[in-house]
Amino acid sequence: MASAKSKVTITDVAKAAGVSNSAVSYALNGKPGVSEKTRKRVLEVADSMGWKPNSAAKALSAARTHSIGVVMTASSKLLGAEPYFMELLAGIGVELEKEDYSLLLRFARDETEALRVHRNWIAAGSVDAVLIFNVEIGDARVELYQQHPEVPALVFSDPSVSGTLTTVSSNDADGARQIVRYLHDLGHRHIARVAGPERFGHTYIRDRVFNEETSNYAMAYDCLHSDYLPEEGRECTERLLSLPNTPTAIVYDNDVMTVEGLHVALSKGLRVPDDLSLMSWDDSYMCTATTPSLTALARDIPKLGEKIVPMLYAMIDGKHVDNQLEPNYHVVTRGSTAALHIEA
Amino acid sequence: MASAKSKVTITDVAKAAGVSNSAVSYALNGKPGVSEKTRKRVLEVADSMGWKPNSAAKALSAARTHSIGVVMTASSKLLGAEPYFMELLAGIGVELEKEDYSLLLRFARDETEALRVHRNWIAAGSVDAVLIFNVEIGDARVELYQQHPEVPALVFSDPSVSGTLTTVSSNDADGARQIVRYLHDLGHRHIARVAGPERFGHTYIRDRVFNEETSNYAMAYDCLHSDYLPEEGRECTERLLSLPNTPTAIVYDNDVMTVEGLHVALSKGLRVPDDLSLMSWDDSYMCTATTPSLTALARDIPKLGEKIVPMLYAMIDGKHVDNQLEPNYHVVTRGSTAALHIEA
Repeated sequence: MASAKSKVTITDVAKAAGVSNSAVSYALNGKPGVSEKTRKRVLEVADSMGWKPNSAAKALSAARTHSIGVVMTASSKLLGAEPYFMELLAGIGVELEKEDYSLLLRFARDETEALRVHRNWIAAGSVDAVLIFNVEIGDARVELYQQHPEVPALVFSDPSVSGTLTTVSSNDADGARQIVRYLHDLGHRHIARVAGPERFGHTYIRDRVFNEETSNYAMAYDCLHSDYLPEEGRECTERLLSLPNTPTAIVYDNDVMTVEGLHVALSKGLRVPDDLSLMSWDDSYMCTATTPSLTALARDIPKLGEKIVPMLYAMIDGKHVDNQLEPNYHVVTRGSTAALHIEA
Repeated sequence: MASAKSKVTITDVAKAAGVSNSAVSYALNGKPGVSEKTRKRVLEVADSMGWKPNSAAKALSAARTHSIGVVMTASSKLLGAEPYFMELLAGIGVELEKEDYSLLLRFARDETEALRVHRNWIAAGSVDAVLIFNVEIGDARVELYQQHPEVPALVFSDPSVSGTLTTVSSNDADGARQIVRYLHDLGHRHIARVAGPERFGHTYIRDRVFNEETSNYAMAYDCLHSDYLPEEGRECTERLLSLPNTPTAIVYDNDVMTVEGLHVALSKGLRVPDDLSLMSWDDSYMCTATTPSLTALARDIPKLGEKIVPMLYAMIDGKHVDNQLEPNYHVVTRGSTAALHIEA
């Protein structure tokens, strides 16, 4: 691996030009965000230091680590239980392999520790780019990578919570609309949802659209928030099924909680789907393992991998990359949902 | 990261002393495998080049990448479906994190490609050590890492197929004995097994012990081999259930195939466990998702992570590490197995 000291870094140019790292990155990559005056000065300084558009990519290439960093903060218990994340990483990894790239995977016990890992990676030049998942509103990782455009960060979130970073966003609003319409068309007029953590940007979007759409259709809607864990899937289902007016369908924000919800319902003598329909947001092999199998909102993960990896390479090459939308969600109908026979 | 050129490597010493890399490693680490004469010459040469036992660890430490390499050749489909491997990696990753180590994860499309990745990692010094899974008899990776002791390899396999490399082996013989005894004690006298690929060392050991133990107990035993994939779990179950004499219990070498076997049995109108007992070798969350839930042979994965990681650090420090056994398997009894009511 070439020494990082042999190349002119964005930080060097920023210091010499007296501007921020972000400003240098915007200027060199032809992105908006700096005045024409600043852009001109940065380009002059970069040029005088030997950083030229044509040599930049080459210099970067020599210093490349050929790895993409991912820090996981989920517990190993959840990572083992929830196949979705592994499926996504494998989908990306299979594409990365074609250009000799690896995933550098770090397990961090909490978010403070995760942030420390990211800082170290930036300081040591350990990775060519990072993938960031589960962005919270005001996320410190977004702030950090905005200050360090020399390590491109691709964020899996809505652009509204990702500052100036490049995003690939799942169309959560569309997904929520598809679910509400699907259940409405089956005749359900009172649905419930066991959502993910309120602190995540995508949970916020789903919450809002579920509220709006159920209201548009004049459906009753209950929502409880969880941390995605199996035991919370059970507890939330118990609570929803003890309400004076129980819902006729429940949607869960992951597959594991849906499995647990199914077991709670069956243990109470409810027939699924005759008495209660259940549905999982995110599909996985697990959804086919249960009896009945679980209707799910699915992503096309191989297609997602094919979409993301070229974005990463372009970002590593210092090119401007537009925010993109994931391939659309679609409902995969299985045995756990049915038309409502008798309305409550 | 310090330049690799600033330190004396094992290869440098090997060249100067006119011996193999392995011989240098054995000599420097006080391992058997070289004559006293060779050991003496290697130590003299190493010393004259500035490689001293005390400075070696320090030099190595400066050149460390703080990452442990894993190349996965399983398809992304299987990786998504089979939670076991992710659970194991997370169990190891959580322990590694305490010392600031990451996993470098590469997805390779086949074994030739995997070998190329390993060669590149060795040449570039990309990782401090590697983990090797699913070792085949005469595995080229074993050969490669024997030639490159400067990158320690911890092999998850029986020592019989791992040459001079350090192993952590699951007690597959004991696991197989536990399963046969468990099913025998439930009254089963004709069992079948859907095994993993015959090319894997651990499949060979399981095959042998299943044969011996069923023979000792005078039980009939059928075995089909698979590639662990869901569709093969289905096909093998179909075949086993079309035999003139069908088994009363089937064991599968992974959880996913057990799930598929359950679905095939239920679709044929068989009651599980009343008509047919099913059992999974390897436990995971998936085994609790089905109805009935699946009896499984389980490993203690957090304990395994705690055992492996200190071995890795010692190997990276150039210390001699003995082969070790994984924590023992144990049977987790769930709803898919029962005592045989009427013998066939």
